[in-house]
Parts: sequence; structure tokens; C-alpha cells
Amino acid sequence: FDYDGPSMKTTVPGPRSQELTKQLGVIQNVGAVNFFCNYEESRGNYLVDVDGNRMLDIYTQISSIPIGYNHPALLKLMTNPNNLSTFVNRPALGILPPENFPDKLTESLISVAPSGMTRVQTMACGSCSNENAYKAMFIWYRNKERGHKTPSDEDLSSCMINQAPGCPDLSILSFMGGFHGRTLGCLATTHSKVIHKLDVPSFDWPIAPFPKLKYPLEEFTRENAQEEARCLEEVEDLIVKWRQKGMPVAGIVIEPIQAEGGDNHASPDFFKQLRKIARKHGCAFHVDEVQTGGGGTGKFWAHEHWGMDDPADIVSFSKKLLTGGYYHKDELQADKPYRIFNTWMGDPSKNLFLSEVLNVIRRENLLEEVTRSGKALLHGLYELQAQYPGILSAARGQGTFCAIDICDDATRDRILVKARDKGVLLGGCGDRSIRFRPALVFKEYHVHLFLNIFNDVLANL
Amino acid sequence: FDYDGPSMKTTVPGPRSQELTKQLGVIQNVGAVNFFCNYEESRGNYLVDVDGNRMLDIYTQISSIPIGYNHPALLKLMTNPNNLSTFVNRPALGILPPENFPDKLTESLISVAPSGMTRVQTMACGSCSNENAYKAMFIWYRNKERGHKTPSDEDLSSCMINQAPGCPDLSILSFMGGFHGRTLGCLATTHSKVIHKLDVPSFDWPIAPFPKLKYPLEEFTRENAQEEARCLEEVEDLIVKWRQKGMPVAGIVIEPIQAEGGDNHASPDFFKQLRKIARKHGCAFHVDEVQTGGGGTGKFWAHEHWGMDDPADIVSFSKKLLTGGYYHKDELQADKPYRIFNTWMGDPSKNLFLSEVLNVIRRENLLEEVTRSGKALLHGLYELQAQYPGILSAARGQGTFCAIDICDDATRDRILVKARDKGVLLGGCGDRSIRFRPALVFKEYHVHLFLNIFNDVLANL
Ligand code: FES
Repeated sequence: FDYDGPSMKTTVPGPRSQELTKQLGVIQNVGAVNFFCNYEESRGNYLVDVDGNRMLDIYTQISSIPIGYNHPALLKLMTNPNNLSTFVNRPALGILPPENFPDKLTESLISVAPSGMTRVQTMACGSCSNENAYKAMFIWYRNKERGHKTPSDEDLSSCMINQAPGCPDLSILSFMGGFHGRTLGCLATTHSKVIHKLDVPSFDWPIAPFPKLKYPLEEFTRENAQEEARCLEEVEDLIVKWRQKGMPVAGIVIEPIQAEGGDNHASPDFFKQLRKIARKHGCAFHVDEVQTGGGGTGKFWAHEHWGMDDPADIVSFSKKLLTGGYYHKDELQADKPYRIFNTWMGDPSKNLFLSEVLNVIRRENLLEEVTRSGKALLHGLYELQAQYPGILSAARGQGTFCAIDICDDATRDRILVKARDKGVLLGGCGDRSIRFRPALVFKEYHVHLFLNIFNDVLANL
Repeated sequence: FDYDGPSMKTTVPGPRSQELTKQLGVIQNVGAVNFFCNYEESRGNYLVDVDGNRMLDIYTQISSIPIGYNHPALLKLMTNPNNLSTFVNRPALGILPPENFPDKLTESLISVAPSGMTRVQTMACGSCSNENAYKAMFIWYRNKERGHKTPSDEDLSSCMINQAPGCPDLSILSFMGGFHGRTLGCLATTHSKVIHKLDVPSFDWPIAPFPKLKYPLEEFTRENAQEEARCLEEVEDLIVKWRQKGMPVAGIVIEPIQAEGGDNHASPDFFKQLRKIARKHGCAFHVDEVQTGGGGTGKFWAHEHWGMDDPADIVSFSKKLLTGGYYHKDELQADKPYRIFNTWMGDPSKNLFLSEVLNVIRRENLLEEVTRSGKALLHGLYELQAQYPGILSAARGQGTFCAIDICDDATRDRILVKARDKGVLLGGCGDRSIRFRPALVFKEYHVHLFLNIFNDVLANL
């Protein structure tokens, strides 16, 4: 089913892509458009563009294609007449769910629920997932502060005009380099790139340093442990400081691997300590798996690598899961209906696809495949970095969720373009990293195919 | 194709709905669930539930079903093999759009662009549409303040830690009773119900009174004009006050009819004056058509009733348009890519449906139908309110986008339940109103069917 390799007809973007970019430019800002795609012809790990170029896709629509393009199982699902109505009639899930909704949730999201969690709220994208997770933490925290669930008259009247105590001075603690979305609540916890935040009003919430570790992690355990201890100390200081400021930290949000911020890793021990600090200070602990979730690290959730029974109070997801949403502990459920609510609350047609994606993952043992491919990929990156020490450094990763640093951002960008013209689609992250985000169907032979081309690019730089 | 009337087998929710609610309750808060639906069997204006009850739907999934359930034109589109890939491969539209994206936008959203606007940014729901519209206004305002587009070093460094000047102290002016979504930015401009806002931190942004008019509007023109003048004066005062506070108003956001807040209307003259005030003070003018857009008022956009050539700087939409997004003036386009951005930037499968919905609207002259049905509906409501003056008052509406007030909220809620048990699905809004939000295929005979049942309910109250 998969194509047998890249096939390039033009440089990218080719003439047809350029023409369409011009056409779209009349309607929208097209500054971010790479090229136009022929999704009908794309298959498996290969993305085909409108000029007939076929590229090995190791970026997968910003890490959001779980099992490759046009997977037969998903196409088949579309031809089942029983499913049509799910696409055509999008319900307001919070008030009028379809008959199969509990079953679909059970066989999809609940079947992969993180350890310690049995409840899930669907949403439509990563941003509303995180926004609503934050709201759930605020509601939980305020009820805890009150000691009961009945708001005061002052709460009720002040909240309508955005004032405390009804709209309380509470905060979410986030990490420098983190990315949690771009709507205003999420954006207040996002600190990966200037262009995301510039000119947008924000909240005065605490921002802790994320450990800056040396790779490979196994070689620098002592230095790295010191750096992690420093960051954890800072977290506690900030929690105390913001409490004194009158803006207590209701929740801590963190990615298991900071993705947009440059694929920054931390040790399981760091996360365990952080979880403890959250508990000690009465803050909810929110693990954002929007980019890491869905199997790319070789486990379904990246936080499973921490080896904890009770890793989090809230786990949010989107992207590879096709639907957004968040799992939560029972106590994090809002006490009344309509507090966590919107018109659509997700989209059953995405749950339908997710169920089938999970079937494919199980049937084809894709998590094992990812672990195998990931080992080959990381091994290959180590070799290349030994071969090109002036260009490459800090190869790192879990499963196929890998990255490598390039000497500077200009060289990084040049490499991305040259690789693309040779038929490999990659993405950048952080200041000067390349991130690898293949689909779960990326096999060992795709790794070797990629490594050969990458080697070629580096040799000719 | 449409059923010929309601058909009730049980009270609602029936036993099967109750069973499923229990099942779902293990996974989610089900406090807002009305009943479970059989979407396969639902057709046109009729929603069928899992107990075999068939209800005339005048609420349409919170006003989000444009042309009824399972419209043959939409089902047909699903069976076209050329469309399959659009459903199966959701792209990151901002970087890798499909070949037909410019054409699809042109034949769908651009073909119904509000007067004076040629540019549109797709988003996925009402909240991200408004959040990004606010961001566009903030970016525009700051560049205007700067006099050029180059941020200072201080801008760049301060924005990463949520501080001014990079994250500037700017505000959006909204109206009491308004609803613009529930993510944290949107929520700061939403003031319709306590339960939406309680316990969620917010921004200290100005909130103006929305005119409280007397209905029918034609009968109280003088009083209403006075009330509107009072509100406009307050708007100007707030703009000045917030500028003095050091938190200038970058934009004003308003619904053409305050929907969640109780179907509050204002005159075209009010909006014209407001638009002028925005211009005078250098604030962008954002018309939120998330609930009003898509034809329910008898025009495609409710703001068309104002009769202006240049009604707004930004118009946001979602719900009946199936995709979210916002139109904007050229000058409101962010100056650089990746400032208004997220992973999906909408969903081409929703554009596909929208194109077809627009075809149906044109082919079946649905806006004229809405105008006709709306007249009959409002006329019928006037008659009922004359007949039941102790229960009903303030019938009002444009097209089928109508509402009526009930003497108190307990009676309102009782009427909603009784009407449902007789086969008519209605929704509440504001403190004690009922809102009518039928699909565009709601014909005059549906109006009469509804009025008969409603009369029955009122007579037996
Ligand atoms: S905010 Fe998530 S879909 Fe709109």
C-alpha cells in the first residue's frame, strides 16, 4: 500500500503550488504555506504535492496524522453507510449525544485512559482541551478554598463583571519553553516563541525554568540531576511567591517532552518530584500530552515512561487522537453542569476515526514498531552526529519522537529545504532543532531511507 | 422527505435515554444531557430520540444545524469517492493546504462575505474564531500605536514572560448580556450567565450596558432611542476611562442580537452609532455572528439588517456555517505568518459541507422561506401573547430568529418540558426567555404545527 520511496519532479514548492499560493494569498496570509498537497494521492508515510512530488513525511501535519495518509481501515469506515449520519449531523454532544456515544467513548478514549483515570471530557482541539482543563482546575481549587460548593453572593455578582472574588486571582504555573496553545488562557502558559505571544495581553502567572539537560541523558546523569533540582527548587519558590502575591497556583501544567520549545526532555525522577511538589502545595498537576500522546514515544502516553501509578490529575490530548479532550481524576470534575461546556464538545466523527485508529494500533502492534523504528532512528542520529560534529549535536528521543540540534538556525533551515527537495519532509522546533514526528506506521526501512537522504544532505552542505 | 409531524412514545427522557445517561455518567458529567438521539432516523426538522420519540426541533443543536438532519444533498456528498480523502486526512491547513482549498473557500465563505470584506481566516469553532479575532485586533492596534511593524527589544523579551510592553495592557470592550465563548479570552467578554464565569480568572476589561428595549420595537421608538443613546454614551465614557487607566480599548465586540443573553435586540441606528464611536476612538469593530449568522434572521448575516456598506472590521462565525472563522478588513490581517495560527486552522471537511449547504440555500431560496416562516412565527407569537398576557410578553424576532419572555424562569422551564413531551423541542435563553432556532428548512406549516402545540401547552398550564 505504501509507496516504495520518495519521487521528486520539481523543487518544492513547484509551479502549481506557487500558483495556488498566489490564489490563496488573495484570501489569507500565506506566509506559512509550504506547498499544496494532493491528499487523494498521498499514502501511508508519503505525502504527495500538487506538482507530483512524493515525499517521505516525517512531520505528519505537525504530528497529527496517527497511521499515515488514506489508511485503508479509515477509508473503509467511510464507506459504511451506518456511519454517514455521524458525519452529516454534528450534535451538541453535551446536551443531545448520539446513542452510541457511551460505547464509542468506552472502546476508544476510555480504553487508553492514563493510569488512575476513568473520566474523560471530549473537546475539539488542543487549545479548548487545555483551556477547559485550566477551568476545571480553577473550579476545583476555589471549591477547595471555600470548603464547600456554594458560592457567596459576592462571588456571583463580581464574576459577571470580571472581578474577584467571583473571577478569582488564581494562576497556572507553566515552564519556560512550554507550549500549550494560543488562545488567551493557553497562551499565558506558552513560552516557546516570541511570535506566538507578541502584542497579546496576558496574565501575570508564574513561569518556572524547564531543565536544560545534556544529551545523551545517560552520560550526564549527575549534572542533569543538579539542573533538575535547581528547577524544582524554583518551582517551589514560585508557588510560595505567588501565594504571597495573592494569586495562588491552582495548577501546574507541563509537557512530558517540551515539543514546540525544542524537544526538551527531563527525567522520570524530575516529573515524580514535580508531582510531589504539586500535591504538597495543593496544586492540580496537568500533563499536556497534545503532541506527545498517541504512541509516538513508543508508549501510548509519554508520561507512562515515568512509571507512576498516579501520574497526574489531568491529562489533555488532541492531534494524533483526532479528537481533543482531557482525562481527569473524579475530584476534578466540575460540580455542576454547564460549567465545562460549549456547543459541540468535540465531534463524534473524530471519535469514530479514533476507535478505528486504536484498532489498527493494536492489530499491527504499532507501539512495538515505533519502539523498534525509534531505536534505529536514534542510533542513526548518534552515528551522524559523530560523523558531523560541527553540524549536529544533542540527538535525543523516545520512540520515534526524536530531535537533533543543528549548529545554528540558518543551517537548520537550509537543511530542512534541502531534505525536502530530496524528498524528505521534516519540521523544525525550538531555536535550531529538527524534530522527527513520523506516523506510527514509520518502519525501520523508512528510517534507513531517511538516514541515507539525510546523510546525503549533510555531506553536500 | 421530512416527517409529517411529531410522534411521541414516552415522556422524555424515555427509559433508553435514562439508561444511556447512567452509562455515560460513569465517564462524564451528564447534568446537561437532555436525552440521547437516533441521528440516523432524524430527518429534516425532526429529531428522533433513542426511545422512538420524534420531535419538531426548534433548537437545532444550539442553533447549529443549517438545513435539517440528514439532508439528502449532504448524504450524497458523503458517497462521492472524490470526497473521502477530505474526511480521512485532516491537514494542517496553515502550512499544507489541499489543492482545492482556494476554490472551496471562494465558492463557500467568500461567496457570502459580508459587505466590505474579501479576506477570511478559517478556524474550528466559535471560541477559537473569537479568540483569534481578538488577537488580530490587538496586533493591529499595537502596530498602529508603534507607527511601524518592528517590535522593540523590550517588546520581544517582555512578551515571553507575559509582561508589558510585549504583552500589552490592552482591552476589548464588551456588553453586559453578551456571549462570545468560554475560553479565557472569550470568557472575559462574555456576561450572560454566572455559571459560565464563576471561579475563572479574567481580565479587567470594560463592560458597557446593552440597551434594554421595549418590544415591539416599532411601538416604543422614542423610549428605545433614549435607552440606546444612554448606552452609547456609556460606551464612550468607558473607552476614555480605560485609556486613562492605561488599558486602551483595542476593539469592541458585539452580537447583532444578544442570543445567549436573552435575545436582546437593538436598532440599526444603535449599531451605526456604535460603529462610528469605534472609528472615532480608533477601536476595531468586531461583529460576532456565531449564533446569528447563516440565514436564521432572513438575511445571511444579521448585520445586513443594519443596511451599511462598511458594517465591521471583523465578523466571526461558526455553528450553522459548520466551520468556524472570521472575515476581516485587509488592515486587520496580521503582518507576519504564524501570529494567527494553530495546528488545524479549521477543517476542510466542514468547508465541503458548507459549500453544499450554500448551494441548497440558493437552490431552495431558503432565505426567502425563513423570512416567510419568520413572519408567520412572530405573528403567531403576538397572537398568543395577547391571549396569555399573564404568561407571555415581549415577542420579538427577525426571520425565524425569534424569542418570547415567560413570566418567570420556573414557568419557562415547565413550558419547555411540557412542549417537549408534546413533541416540540425548544431552548431557553437569558433569565426567562424561550428562543426559537429552527433550521432554514422550517416552513410555514411547521410554524402552524408548532403554534398549535404551544397553544395547547399554554392552555393547560
Ligand atoms: S478552541 Fe478548540 S476547536 Fe475552537
